[in-house]
Amino acid sequence: MAIKGLGQIDKEYDGSKLRIGIIHARWNKTVIDALVAGAIKRLKELNVQESNIIVESVPGSFELPFGTQRFIEYQSKIGEPLDAVIPIGVLIKGSTMHFEYICDSVTHAIMNLQPRVNIPVIYGVLTCLTEEQATSRAGLVPGVMHNHGEDWGAAAVEMSTKFK
Amino acid sequence: MAIKGLGQIDKEYDGSKLRIGIIHARWNKTVIDALVAGAIKRLKELNVQESNIIVESVPGSFELPFGTQRFIEYQSKIGEPLDAVIPIGVLIKGSTMHFEYICDSVTHAIMNLQPRVNIPVIYGVLTCLTEEQATSRAGLVPGVMHNHGEDWGAAAVEMSTKFK
Amino acid sequence: MAIKGLGQIDKEYDGSKLRIGIIHARWNKTVIDALVAGAIKRLKELNVQESNIIVESVPGSFELPFGTQRFIEYQSKIGEPLDAVIPIGVLIKGSTMHFEYICDSVTHAIMNLQPRVNIPVIYGVLTCLTEEQATSRAGLVPGVMHNHGEDWGAAAVEMSTKFK
Amino acid sequence: MAIKGLGQIDKEYDGSKLRIGIIHARWNKTVIDALVAGAIKRLKELNVQESNIIVESVPGSFELPFGTQRFIEYQSKIGEPLDAVIPIGVLIKGSTMHFEYICDSVTHAIMNLQPRVNIPVIYGVLTCLTEEQATSRAGLVPGVMHNHGEDWGAAAVEMSTKFK
Amino acid sequence: MAIKGLGQIDKEYDGSKLRIGIIHARWNKTVIDALVAGAIKRLKELNVQESNIIVESVPGSFELPFGTQRFIEYQSKIGEPLDAVIPIGVLIKGSTMHFEYICDSVTHAIMNLQPRVNIPVIYGVLTCLTEEQATSRAGLVPGVMHNHGEDWGAAAVEMSTKFK
Repeated sequence: MAIKGLGQIDKEYDGSKLRIGIIHARWNKTVIDALVAGAIKRLKELNVQESNIIVESVPGSFELPFGTQRFIEYQSKIGEPLDAVIPIGVLIKGSTMHFEYICDSVTHAIMNLQPRVNIPVIYGVLTCLTEEQATSRAGLVPGVMHNHGEDWGAAAVEMSTKFK
Repeated sequence: MAIKGLGQIDKEYDGSKLRIGIIHARWNKTVIDALVAGAIKRLKELNVQESNIIVESVPGSFELPFGTQRFIEYQSKIGEPLDAVIPIGVLIKGSTMHFEYICDSVTHAIMNLQPRVNIPVIYGVLTCLTEEQATSRAGLVPGVMHNHGEDWGAAAVEMSTKFK
Repeated sequence: MAIKGLGQIDKEYDGSKLRIGIIHARWNKTVIDALVAGAIKRLKELNVQESNIIVESVPGSFELPFGTQRFIEYQSKIGEPLDAVIPIGVLIKGSTMHFEYICDSVTHAIMNLQPRVNIPVIYGVLTCLTEEQATSRAGLVPGVMHNHGEDWGAAAVEMSTKFK
Repeated sequence: MAIKGLGQIDKEYDGSKLRIGIIHARWNKTVIDALVAGAIKRLKELNVQESNIIVESVPGSFELPFGTQRFIEYQSKIGEPLDAVIPIGVLIKGSTMHFEYICDSVTHAIMNLQPRVNIPVIYGVLTCLTEEQATSRAGLVPGVMHNHGEDWGAAAVEMSTKFK
Repeated sequence: MAIKGLGQIDKEYDGSKLRIGIIHARWNKTVIDALVAGAIKRLKELNVQESNIIVESVPGSFELPFGTQRFIEYQSKIGEPLDAVIPIGVLIKGSTMHFEYICDSVTHAIMNLQPRVNIPVIYGVLTCLTEEQATSRAGLVPGVMHNHGEDWGAAAVEMSTKFK
């Protein structure tokens, strides 16, 4: 019995009225670019208008949580509030312990950000032990895995619609 | 001396006046479905009315804590407040470190959610190293282990009655 | 030089005016029962009156932090406020990662509960890799170790007297 | 395909109006000094005026988070508020578990400081398993790696400009 | 190149006007006593008056964070507020996972205590894998390492003076 995999979505969601933010780190650019493209592709398939997909960047993944908060605040201030944000980062294990401490603090901070900003913040961070794991999950290795950015786009639409 | 196992409950609890929420992730659907069914079965045995068991879903386990909070707020807003919620997720170790960071942040977030929402939130998350560990704990491997969803149903009724 | 072990207490404490709560999980009942008995024995030796020792239970250790908070609030509400609480749980490593995530979240939550409830919450949780480690620390293996519940009883009296 | 490395910055940032704080621990001084120099060099290249780069120190990395908070508060109090701070520390694995607990608590505290002080706090902490890893990342081993302090200087300018 | 070790202090600090608290656990008393003596020795060298060094104790390290908070509050209440506190504990790895969970929760709690009490709380906790590591760091093994309590005394004076 193969039990893994994401179950069918509970119903079709319509993103035509949603404004979704994507904020990505710039380390490991090839993978990041593919993940951002995957998220945007899925958002559009769910009827999010291109003009309602706002893309921003920060240098590295450690900057994602505070950057996400400020991004949300800024969009509200200019009268274009976001319904959900997808922070995207790609972390790959190196020889120091940098990977472990960044992954851990960023994951907790993204989780804990949600009750404060009061919109869904989708976890778009890959925490990989090898480069191949990262490229596979961005859909860059044909026939291996799908682009995980697509899941994040779908989650953003579902979460911001369901619990509005 | 066999010391493991859950001790006898301190008294019989009656769930006939309770409204219990179940919110589950959709990854690893076979296992999730069995756990949700186990929780519902036990809730009913403890006299929770079927109409007072409200089931909701989110895409993945990372969405459980914020989804749980919003689910609780929504039920209060529509005048049908919940007495306890059981977030249910099934996480299985993969090749990246995704499992570790999701398990860790979700567990802390469910724990820390309770003082804010001020109702018991039962930890219905399986953190397994293999698929077989997950199916066993959902009662899907005959004769091995009982369905852990049943424990969660019982805990929801006890915790929301005892400390009301 | 043997350096391990608890140093002599700084002075004798008198618990005759204190009301102490014990709240225990029910998993691994034999060990739990011994630890609870050890804590009560020591509390009485320090002059805490039997009628001022209030014992409550929750299903499992994950329920301890929120149960402790509600227990404290309830005792205050009925006009019988607690001076300290000892949450007691026994966790034993199993084959999944359940042990690690429960131990970690419960320990942090008990720690962080203290400034909110503003009374000492004594850490009465055993985090064991084997059953034998648990029975030894509950004084159930003659001649090996003392019952750790006694230390927790003493700590509850000292902490609630010293920093009152 | 080489995927690692920091992607091109999204645009040129001008730091001429910014006031940036650097607060460093004093353990492992050679490496610290090089990292501080690297950060300052990059800040100047991005037009931050030398008089607007304020450097402070604390004894060790554990003191960085609270020191950073006080540093920010002090600069505000004297009418010279900071736009971003870079806490810099160098931790190297020793034989006890000191490294692990300091790295973990300092990283989380720097992350969690940001929403409270409401300016970007750049993670300038090296968490190395060997001395060589530390010297390499400070640009002290010719031809191996660049000085990571430069990245932190650039991140401080970008983050404080972009989300002002 | 030897890079390890604490760099020279940035300037001489004068502790003659400071009131410093030391609060220590009582487990592993020989090591604790030496560390407390080392801290006091250094405080005096930096001109802290003996009557301004207040020493308190708690049973074990888990009690340090809440004990520290209450100690600070009590000293304020009696009109003798502290300028910094050094919680001192000695944890040594045993056979269960007690060491890991105590070290982790205590370290985070001491870190997070600082913004709430708004004075420096110096991390005087040894997290050792062997008894020898502990005695060495308390200056009890001649010619091996210096007494780390001295560093903590110096850090208390510097931190409470610099960011007053």
